[in-house]
Amino acid sequence: MTHVAGRHFLQIPGPSPVPDRVLRAMSAQVIDHRGPEFADLGLKSLKSIKSIFKTAQDVVIFPSSGTGAWEAALVNVLSEGDRVLMYETGHFASLWKKMAEKLGIRPEFIVGDWRAGADADQIEQHLRADTGHEIKAVCVVHNETSTGAVSPIADVRRAIDAAGHPALLMVDTISGLASVDFRFDEWGVDVAVSGSQKGLMLPPGISFNAVSAKALELSKTSGMRRSYWDWQDMVGINTKGYFPYTPATNMLYGLVEAIDMLHEEGLDNVFARHQRHAAATRAAVRAWNLEVLCNRQGHESGVLTAVVMPQGHSADNLRAEALKHYNISLGSGLSKVADKIFRIGHLGDINDLTLIGALSGVELALGKAGVPHATGGVGVAMKYLADTPAPGIAA
Amino acid sequence: MTHVAGRHFLQIPGPSPVPDRVLRAMSAQVIDHRGPEFADLGLKSLKSIKSIFKTAQDVVIFPSSGTGAWEAALVNVLSEGDRVLMYETGHFASLWKKMAEKLGIRPEFIVGDWRAGADADQIEQHLRADTGHEIKAVCVVHNETSTGAVSPIADVRRAIDAAGHPALLMVDTISGLASVDFRFDEWGVDVAVSGSQKGLMLPPGISFNAVSAKALELSKTSGMRRSYWDWQDMVGINTKGYFPYTPATNMLYGLVEAIDMLHEEGLDNVFARHQRHAAATRAAVRAWNLEVLCNRQGHESGVLTAVVMPQGHSADNLRAEALKHYNISLGSGLSKVADKIFRIGHLGDINDLTLIGALSGVELALGKAGVPHATGGVGVAMKYLADTPAPGIAA
Amino acid sequence: MTHVAGRHFLQIPGPSPVPDRVLRAMSAQVIDHRGPEFADLGLKSLKSIKSIFKTAQDVVIFPSSGTGAWEAALVNVLSEGDRVLMYETGHFASLWKKMAEKLGIRPEFIVGDWRAGADADQIEQHLRADTGHEIKAVCVVHNETSTGAVSPIADVRRAIDAAGHPALLMVDTISGLASVDFRFDEWGVDVAVSGSQKGLMLPPGISFNAVSAKALELSKTSGMRRSYWDWQDMVGINTKGYFPYTPATNMLYGLVEAIDMLHEEGLDNVFARHQRHAAATRAAVRAWNLEVLCNRQGHESGVLTAVVMPQGHSADNLRAEALKHYNISLGSGLSKVADKIFRIGHLGDINDLTLIGALSGVELALGKAGVPHATGGVGVAMKYLADTPAPGIAA
Amino acid sequence: MTHVAGRHFLQIPGPSPVPDRVLRAMSAQVIDHRGPEFADLGLKSLKSIKSIFKTAQDVVIFPSSGTGAWEAALVNVLSEGDRVLMYETGHFASLWKKMAEKLGIRPEFIVGDWRAGADADQIEQHLRADTGHEIKAVCVVHNETSTGAVSPIADVRRAIDAAGHPALLMVDTISGLASVDFRFDEWGVDVAVSGSQKGLMLPPGISFNAVSAKALELSKTSGMRRSYWDWQDMVGINTKGYFPYTPATNMLYGLVEAIDMLHEEGLDNVFARHQRHAAATRAAVRAWNLEVLCNRQGHESGVLTAVVMPQGHSADNLRAEALKHYNISLGSGLSKVADKIFRIGHLGDINDLTLIGALSGVELALGKAGVPHATGGVGVAMKYLADTPAPGIAA
Repeated sequence: MTHVAGRHFLQIPGPSPVPDRVLRAMSAQVIDHRGPEFADLGLKSLKSIKSIFKTAQDVVIFPSSGTGAWEAALVNVLSEGDRVLMYETGHFASLWKKMAEKLGIRPEFIVGDWRAGADADQIEQHLRADTGHEIKAVCVVHNETSTGAVSPIADVRRAIDAAGHPALLMVDTISGLASVDFRFDEWGVDVAVSGSQKGLMLPPGISFNAVSAKALELSKTSGMRRSYWDWQDMVGINTKGYFPYTPATNMLYGLVEAIDMLHEEGLDNVFARHQRHAAATRAAVRAWNLEVLCNRQGHESGVLTAVVMPQGHSADNLRAEALKHYNISLGSGLSKVADKIFRIGHLGDINDLTLIGALSGVELALGKAGVPHATGGVGVAMKYLADTPAPGIAA
Repeated sequence: MTHVAGRHFLQIPGPSPVPDRVLRAMSAQVIDHRGPEFADLGLKSLKSIKSIFKTAQDVVIFPSSGTGAWEAALVNVLSEGDRVLMYETGHFASLWKKMAEKLGIRPEFIVGDWRAGADADQIEQHLRADTGHEIKAVCVVHNETSTGAVSPIADVRRAIDAAGHPALLMVDTISGLASVDFRFDEWGVDVAVSGSQKGLMLPPGISFNAVSAKALELSKTSGMRRSYWDWQDMVGINTKGYFPYTPATNMLYGLVEAIDMLHEEGLDNVFARHQRHAAATRAAVRAWNLEVLCNRQGHESGVLTAVVMPQGHSADNLRAEALKHYNISLGSGLSKVADKIFRIGHLGDINDLTLIGALSGVELALGKAGVPHATGGVGVAMKYLADTPAPGIAA
Repeated sequence: MTHVAGRHFLQIPGPSPVPDRVLRAMSAQVIDHRGPEFADLGLKSLKSIKSIFKTAQDVVIFPSSGTGAWEAALVNVLSEGDRVLMYETGHFASLWKKMAEKLGIRPEFIVGDWRAGADADQIEQHLRADTGHEIKAVCVVHNETSTGAVSPIADVRRAIDAAGHPALLMVDTISGLASVDFRFDEWGVDVAVSGSQKGLMLPPGISFNAVSAKALELSKTSGMRRSYWDWQDMVGINTKGYFPYTPATNMLYGLVEAIDMLHEEGLDNVFARHQRHAAATRAAVRAWNLEVLCNRQGHESGVLTAVVMPQGHSADNLRAEALKHYNISLGSGLSKVADKIFRIGHLGDINDLTLIGALSGVELALGKAGVPHATGGVGVAMKYLADTPAPGIAA
Repeated sequence: MTHVAGRHFLQIPGPSPVPDRVLRAMSAQVIDHRGPEFADLGLKSLKSIKSIFKTAQDVVIFPSSGTGAWEAALVNVLSEGDRVLMYETGHFASLWKKMAEKLGIRPEFIVGDWRAGADADQIEQHLRADTGHEIKAVCVVHNETSTGAVSPIADVRRAIDAAGHPALLMVDTISGLASVDFRFDEWGVDVAVSGSQKGLMLPPGISFNAVSAKALELSKTSGMRRSYWDWQDMVGINTKGYFPYTPATNMLYGLVEAIDMLHEEGLDNVFARHQRHAAATRAAVRAWNLEVLCNRQGHESGVLTAVVMPQGHSADNLRAEALKHYNISLGSGLSKVADKIFRIGHLGDINDLTLIGALSGVELALGKAGVPHATGGVGVAMKYLADTPAPGIAA
């Protein structure tokens, strides 16, 4: 084994650093998943996660990555040949579309330029054009992890309603949940998809579907052949705190602890913290004379900031130098922006000084890698933080 | 919180107690699943798990419970309407069949009495009768967790060959792997299914498919619509140590550590230890004048022992008394043997004194619950252990 | 590294097994020992430990083993040349005497046979004879760890009072505290000495002096040259939750957690549990036709049971066989009973089934080592446990 | 409980942040301190710590804070009334002197201004003047934690030799060891004192005396009455890996792991890393127009940097603002520099980005607290780091 001094800066847009307190909670011994002690854990887990989705309806927990919860969302309410409306916010929206196609669904894909969230107006237009109501669902990515752009989910809901269209609203908030404001019930979302390793500050390993009563009812008669992902097998036994198959017990220990931490800080403080850090990051990027990928005001993500490399310079080389010299992991550009952008994660259990450390890592690596840039971004970010009140701390 | 003194005896047939060393390994900080450090972890994980399946072919790791790996096994090689031959060894064989039916597969189910493993002769007969080779796969549970009976997989392989039948051999060794001898390559298994929380001594959360070259090839053209479970997306990127979607990193930390521990002890010693403990347990049960559910010699499981309650006495009441008074969890009877049997798990990280502690918990609880029995089973088990050399310890 | 399957049975009379919950509490990151967060920890630690000593007077916490707290007790109130009365309960009483001599104190040693606690009548006689009141202190070991005998501290207090003697009462309750009833204020103890690694269920590393107001006052003018052990440097700054030199922060995390656990169970339940396990152990020893070292009724320890080997048989060989074959550590005989006795620890975080496991380890090792004995001790202990209500569990 | 987001920056000059890997090692279950497994641990611990002191002579490990090891150093070789030469490098040198006085030793104290390490020439002069060789020892603090100044120990050795004086050389390297170069044998040190919670990256709880053969021999006939601290009781039994009283087992787990980590990085790299970070810190301080307390070139510490506040501004207020707003702990000024200076710890498990985060915390807090300063110190530190090759990383 070799030891590299100091704490690694894990500044990818998820998995985010797991707080020690969560790791400790997770290191408790496993218990009988059919015994009375587990029932308490199961009920507390479900109650906790509902408070984060802001729903009084159902949340289903899968032992799986977020990709599994994507599949679960699709197969419970959609059938082969169903048409859905999807929106190309970036790589993950494209992957979800590809998954839908593999499963026999026919997505209509509103093309995007990967520099903004979904456009609610375009969605409304498409739905209005679908006078036969053949589109069964509108699928939108809340926080597009590949680009750092957030889609206005409440606007999408309004668009659907304005079009008088009965399509379900399905939202991927894998990287948005618990970092960016999300309101399942208030916004009328029908199915939301999320995972553990982002704003929830857990390791990867469990994923979620929040399910509206309407979607749950639909799943009784619709959907594809399914077993592992079947909501119906879950929701009944969940009321007693149990699961139809062996749950990932230790992840649930961590889930309850992590959500306690989020509520201790206050969800609104958590969201404001992410926004403040994102703004400081963008200020640094601009001071470096670099470009933020997301160019639609109001869509910039609190979770991550994607940075466009100057023409002719490799983002992957920059990331490699950053890792080698400064012990920091940055996110890579994916598929069509591979090597052209890099991503700075600022989600989860992060504070001002860690952010500054991370931004200094980027600035120093830009130097090491010979990327043309102005120095001083870190100072600009510091000034932003100094001038902007931190949520939850009395002046 | 309330504290109950002393260590809980988790004597269900899985999850098995996770060794402290594994919990510590798992409590390391999560890392970038696309970075170079992860590649080492991924490659080591895959190499490790192959050594346990005893295969040079592929093993695929899913973030999911074992139930997910069941589904993965079915959907990668079977198609809707396909006929398969399954064998009713007990509750879990029945569940797997039910899953197959949900997925549109047509299982033929050889009825069993839940007191033995699969009968290879019956399988051979069925296959011989299938002259049109419509049966695509023979699905057998290696260690039936609901009954404590082991199926002779090598015999099943010979039966298939003797019948000259091309069906795939698919084996559920969720609770057998790493506790009971299993040889994927040598026995000509095509698909094996397993999970983390049994002989591998991990918490629940990841599962496995071992896949023969033949099955892998078949999966290119066969199987159902699938995405999350698709082997093809896995095996390519796995060669570099990566996964197509976010893996359960901390579970992999534990996997590597647990398999190191198994090899330190020696796999043959591990298997012999389980057999020795199972035999001691059966000796105790018989001394109590109770009946072991598995009544086929040679099929008794090294993983667990199911015990038949005397007529008119509730197994669940016994288990509740055991938990309340002696801080021990025992396994319940499932579906048709509910409340009629209980199960003693003796798998995973267990030694002689823990086994004796567990058996004393059963004997004391039999007394508390007023179940007619002879005392002295613990003494008989001790005598068995004293008289039978322990594997791996020089006399 | 090599792996020996299963949990080690640590059945020495301390260190006792540390509960996972305590280990997790201790694994939190260290904090600034001069900052506000530490003050809370310090105050909570001191309040907690006082509740265990049952005192409203002072308790001082040293980063040291219990041996250090012995020295602290002596050097704060005694001066070179001072006479003290000590009682030879066993090896540790002898070591404390030897320490006193090294420090220039002149102990008078009431000889004992290592088979009982202190005799209060003899102490009274000695004090009555000391008409000049030259004896400055009576030093008694509460629970003699080398023999498994408990001294009646309340009786010793009465003896001092009956003799009208002003000597201080100093008590070593290193292995007694939190396992056997102890009441610092009610019993009029002046200085008590304890450590972390016994009934408090922590690793070794911190130790304690409970100090009466009288002793504290005395220490202002008496005692030897001292620095590290000086109570006066401690008690002032302790009122704010701080310490005069760097405290063992992570041990304090564990201390608070462990004492929470003791109170959750209830101190009286904790004491009763130890008594019940000790009685079960003695029943087993007698059933083996072996002799319990402590032969004074009412003095038998709840913490440990020392067992006399049959003539000509080596206790150390027995312990080596137990460790090799059954993964259990037993305590050795010390100094004059070396190799003649062995000690079974049943203190701390222990429950019925762990005790039975431990006793079965002894019984099996007696067999392996060829020690003449009757089998069946485990069964007798089980019967005792079955017949004797467990504290804190409703029938 | 309340949760403050993100990792705390523990930038005091010890305890330093404990790496997760060390905390994990320490969370293993305690073992029998008289058993064979412990012997391996004890031997490995002693061998490891000798490699850090760079000695082939003896090192003694105490369960105590560093203050205890100070006392041990004094009481093993010095007697009441002995004269010693001490040097006022700062607060901790003064405390050691005060301890010596409490123990009856007569220190001669070379007055210093707290802005440099010891001056070897002055020591030589004093020793030359002591023609009767009444001075038994020269006591010097290697790294003065209260000021951030390092004494040139090799020069002090040369001074003693030049004076032809037989005094022992006793060195407090509590905060220096494993951060700043130290060579016990090569530099002819007789007794060195250290602790766990600084460069060794452990929690507080164990301390060390390195002991030359000459000092060890002397301790047989010299020194004060002592018991706990007696080297003679230690060194014999240490050769077998055991200790005379219960050792702090879990701290030893951590010690071995931490020293493995130091050697993986390479001790010379560790020292160079500390120097580089100290230089970057000084560059920042000067850019803020603030003054570094240590004003003797070559004496600046790699462990910490003490910063002088502008007249009329409170260092403690600055530290409070830093803690409240930026979740960073800074060291306070002690005794005569209380509230006049603050200290930035940059020792132990620290890397470039953590240092920058810490310095940004200072710069931001200077602003919050209204302390007159120039901004841009962080940028200057970053430039220093960029321009100065990092040890152990290939360009």
